[in-house]
Amino acid sequence: MPKYYWEDFAPGHVAEYGAYEVSAEEIKAFAAEFDPQPMHLDEEAARASIVGGLCASGWHSCAIMMRILADGFVLDSASMGATGCPEIKWIAPVRPGDRLRVRVKVLDTRVSRSRPEMGFVNARFDMLNAADLPVMSVTTNMMLERRGTSGEPAGAA
Amino acid sequence: MPKYYWEDFAPGHVAEYGAYEVSAEEIKAFAAEFDPQPMHLDEEAARASIVGGLCASGWHSCAIMMRILADGFVLDSASMGATGCPEIKWIAPVRPGDRLRVRVKVLDTRVSRSRPEMGFVNARFDMLNAADLPVMSVTTNMMLERRGTSGEPAGAA
Repeated sequence: MPKYYWEDFAPGHVAEYGAYEVSAEEIKAFAAEFDPQPMHLDEEAARASIVGGLCASGWHSCAIMMRILADGFVLDSASMGATGCPEIKWIAPVRPGDRLRVRVKVLDTRVSRSRPEMGFVNARFDMLNAADLPVMSVTTNMMLERRGTSGEPAGAA
Repeated sequence: MPKYYWEDFAPGHVAEYGAYEVSAEEIKAFAAEFDPQPMHLDEEAARASIVGGLCASGWHSCAIMMRILADGFVLDSASMGATGCPEIKWIAPVRPGDRLRVRVKVLDTRVSRSRPEMGFVNARFDMLNAADLPVMSVTTNMMLERRGTSGEPAGAA
């Protein structure tokens, strides 16, 4: 049974999850599969690039953020996925050895009109490194089941 | 030497890249590492979920899109990365066996004020399945070197 439902994410709710330490090997392995640009794959080429050294693909940062959130609360929640992200900002490079945390802030919520057993949570995720500096900021629209509606016909709650 | 520079991505430029065929094994492997929600990890649990069957993590879709674009043009370009994505929309589930393509449309471009050897390209990426239905839409701000500026001091071109 999920511990967290839509009602547990009210506007203003703040929480922090992590840490996840990312290695050079992981950065290169993700890049080799999905984003084989030299700055994500090779130390020497990365030093000569605009980022000045090996750094994770922005999509790897997103995947790491998802893992931190999954372990932090999503797997314990009545999550129904997400419709998208109104914004992703890659603020600073994610480097080998970085210990990453994610700070969650709920911005806004509403009940679905077409599926009253479901609610939307508009949240902002700030990924921070060990020096507490933001490396990425993501806003997203999560969908969660409302408490007490499980297994009942839509709208019965 | 790169084949493509900022100048090659004028507003209105359209191109299409792919296909990339995604397997159930890849969907589950990505999920196990980054997004271990049942709908991405287990056929039976996925059938009981809102998406009605196994589907790729939205972040896996983003990573696949990046791979299609890297092979399509990014690795042949004077890419300097990206600052973020003003929007990601997960429109439809990505299923095992889906053959994915990405349609690129350049929306807007400008030269960087602080780094005149660089330009920005605001583009829209629509990821389509074999039935030509959009599964994801992403807008992004790419940074590319301007032609003829390589190795010269900033602003010399």
